[in-house]
Amino acid sequence: MTPPPRGFPDIEYRNRLGRAQSLMARADLAAMLLTTEAEIRYFTGFLTRFWESPTRPWFVIIPADGDPVAVIPSIGADLMGQSRSIDIRTWQSPDLKDDGIALLASTLVELLPEGSQIGVPKGPETHLRMPLHSWADLQARASALRFVGDAKILRQLRMFKSPAEVEKIRFACGIADRAFARVPEIARTRVPLERVFRDFQRLCLEEGADWIGYLAGGAGTGGYRDVISPASDRPLQAGDVLMLDTGCVWDGYLCDFDRNFAIGDVQAKTHAAHAHLIEATQSAFEMARPGIRTCDLYQAMKAALSGHAMAGRYGHGLGMQLTEWPSILPDDQTVLAEGMTMTLEPAVSLGAGRMLIHEENIVITKTGAAYLSRPADTPLPRLN
Amino acid sequence: MTPPPRGFPDIEYRNRLGRAQSLMARADLAAMLLTTEAEIRYFTGFLTRFWESPTRPWFVIIPADGDPVAVIPSIGADLMGQSRSIDIRTWQSPDLKDDGIALLASTLVELLPEGSQIGVPKGPETHLRMPLHSWADLQARASALRFVGDAKILRQLRMFKSPAEVEKIRFACGIADRAFARVPEIARTRVPLERVFRDFQRLCLEEGADWIGYLAGGAGTGGYRDVISPASDRPLQAGDVLMLDTGCVWDGYLCDFDRNFAIGDVQAKTHAAHAHLIEATQSAFEMARPGIRTCDLYQAMKAALSGHAMAGRYGHGLGMQLTEWPSILPDDQTVLAEGMTMTLEPAVSLGAGRMLIHEENIVITKTGAAYLSRPADTPLPRLN
Repeated sequence: MTPPPRGFPDIEYRNRLGRAQSLMARADLAAMLLTTEAEIRYFTGFLTRFWESPTRPWFVIIPADGDPVAVIPSIGADLMGQSRSIDIRTWQSPDLKDDGIALLASTLVELLPEGSQIGVPKGPETHLRMPLHSWADLQARASALRFVGDAKILRQLRMFKSPAEVEKIRFACGIADRAFARVPEIARTRVPLERVFRDFQRLCLEEGADWIGYLAGGAGTGGYRDVISPASDRPLQAGDVLMLDTGCVWDGYLCDFDRNFAIGDVQAKTHAAHAHLIEATQSAFEMARPGIRTCDLYQAMKAALSGHAMAGRYGHGLGMQLTEWPSILPDDQTVLAEGMTMTLEPAVSLGAGRMLIHEENIVITKTGAAYLSRPADTPLPRLN
Repeated sequence: MTPPPRGFPDIEYRNRLGRAQSLMARADLAAMLLTTEAEIRYFTGFLTRFWESPTRPWFVIIPADGDPVAVIPSIGADLMGQSRSIDIRTWQSPDLKDDGIALLASTLVELLPEGSQIGVPKGPETHLRMPLHSWADLQARASALRFVGDAKILRQLRMFKSPAEVEKIRFACGIADRAFARVPEIARTRVPLERVFRDFQRLCLEEGADWIGYLAGGAGTGGYRDVISPASDRPLQAGDVLMLDTGCVWDGYLCDFDRNFAIGDVQAKTHAAHAHLIEATQSAFEMARPGIRTCDLYQAMKAALSGHAMAGRYGHGLGMQLTEWPSILPDDQTVLAEGMTMTLEPAVSLGAGRMLIHEENIVITKTGAAYLSRPADTPLPRLN
């Protein structure tokens, strides 16, 4: 599988900026202030694992007109300046006395008329990546400006993927597909789950992942207890269901899906539960198309699980983050549209704290949906 | 190398809680409210990669007396409840109408007398991991309580590692040591840097990493342009210096150090620069002991770099995050004490946008310091 080109052509960033600025005009925002990895990368292409370090704050201003303005630590200037048109202003961070707030405030005051509204993402799934003391300091220094919400603009923009974004997610899915196909090489009875996790990440790298942003899973007789725990050193044993759920990263975009495996012979009800999950996923897939709501997908999956459905969401958006807006929930009324990438993720309860979960990745097309992951077969793959 | 035990005995958590509560009493805090991964894990042992998903907020309250109170999405209840004594209250998240704020507010109001002060980390290197709208909502719902700073208590606690924490960091360093020793297997002329990054992560997994929290690096003739960029597809060529900088995770603790390699023959001034870096690191190492300040380490390294020193910090704390408090800066007056784990990380500028950086990991002991990484030799290892 040939990888798509890395990065994006300039036109992609110009389109994102143009759409943002047109939404900002409608919401009467003179600028938006962004502080988190995905928000900043969306407008600048600034891709680095350096966000792992909590030390330095990073700021990008999207003005109502013109190029993004990056107010960033000097250590990032070279990378930020490599491509498109960005006004870059730096300070030497960390600075114990003032870590960029005076520069950020003076930049905002220079760019914006008094009384302007600055949109800051404040809603669900967002956070402000700067110290609260700095946030208070910024508002005091730029007291002639008003920091309001972003009118859901970031959510609205990022929910719809361009064809180039979809290709990156599809490629990440392909990496995980190939790694899942090789699980028989690494998982069998007596292998500790911890080693399976380690080896599975190796397979993802061998199949082309830049890095592995997420791996969780579980194993247990006829089901697993939860799906977010780290691996234990418990060896796999006959009768276990093994589940691996991965987010492989390629060029800054993620897949997010899982696969279940039978270790030796598993109970008939486990096979039946897996078949229900596949059926539920397929029923949502067949329904998914522009105009359908996420709550409709939820109800379709719930109906197919006939009484064993677990509470919780049955999928979500995906892209630059492992999970993105929207959620597939009973009361989420988001209307599907072309270019949305989603997971379908129904779960069943098998009693006694045991569960089974299945996940696929799809993209909404003009007339329906297409799988980005290679959909799993109904029979559980059997490992010895 | 035998791994240390995973997790911590209960006494470790009781000690952390006891120290926190004694500092809280002095600062007149009736509780602390924590929202981020490292802060929550520090008091609860809650270790999961699920934080990659930005969807759900997580809250832990440290009361002035008694056990931590976790106000969390139900998906995490099983993992949070696996070990020590924690009062767990859950809601079904995501909830589009109220994602845990009513429950958090009522829990705080139930636990705390009117007028109580609640400490929230607000200083450098912190952020609040919840939507700003939720933060405003919480303060409105719990308006009889006062949300103030945490009096630097989290920083103060986490800066000093217990012997069990140091052993985890040492083990993570050992994993990276062994992976670095195997770089000749994967890096030579004509291998694209991108493939080196992928293969190096595989080596880290083979040597025992749970996952690779960080990998950055660079390669270029006589130096690299920056140290935070993702890998390009440029093949290594004779005369390059290759640098790899990794944060391997083991049981939730990280190493953070780098190694430089010569691809074929490199310029004499590159060898000289590397020798200066090793000398600078060693001079800081020899000085490091309880009572010395981080700014003293900075000056020692700067002096040893004799005019080629790059601006920036020359090291930082490490542990549950890739970088932690304090920084090795000219004006950071943090006094070293037993149990602090740090990086020493001097950098030199070689002109024309080229640099070289070297990094080791150390722990402050009763009488001096000990290396956690196996210190690099002065001559650059040569790869063909």
